[in-house]
Amino acid sequence: MKARVHVMLKTGVLDPQGEAIRHALGTLGFDGVEAVRQGKVIELDLSETDRAKAEASVTEMCEKLLANTVIERFDIELID
Amino acid sequence: MKARVHVMLKTGVLDPQGEAIRHALGTLGFDGVEAVRQGKVIELDLSETDRAKAEASVTEMCEKLLANTVIERFDIELID
Repeated sequence: MKARVHVMLKTGVLDPQGEAIRHALGTLGFDGVEAVRQGKVIELDLSETDRAKAEASVTEMCEKLLANTVIERFDIELID
Repeated sequence: MKARVHVMLKTGVLDPQGEAIRHALGTLGFDGVEAVRQGKVIELDLSETDRAKAEASVTEMCEKLLANTVIERFDIELID
């Protein structure tokens, strides 16, 4: 089973990387970009085949390692 | 309109960040993680309302700034 995890800064937390991208896009002539947020995506290949167990396991991975839950939110998507 | 862009290293390109995560998960006791790939996710708020124009514009942004197409692939998802 594959899992895809998105880790984004929570709303209200300053995102300087996203702001830099927005500014660079403006410089390149792309108008109409109102806001940009940048985050991480992590794709995991798991040997677990049970959907519920895989989701529980990936949630624990996020809480312990993949996301800093003080400033980041994560969401998990299971594929297959 | 919102756009979400995923930028991942192409298959075959070494991903040391993903490898580091895989190793760290093993150290934390998560068995059964066979492979990990890490990439970027970029969320854009666009003033453009036409779907085709928005997609063309975001594709150009990816090619010019957001992805290094020599080693990275990108995919675009439009929301709304």
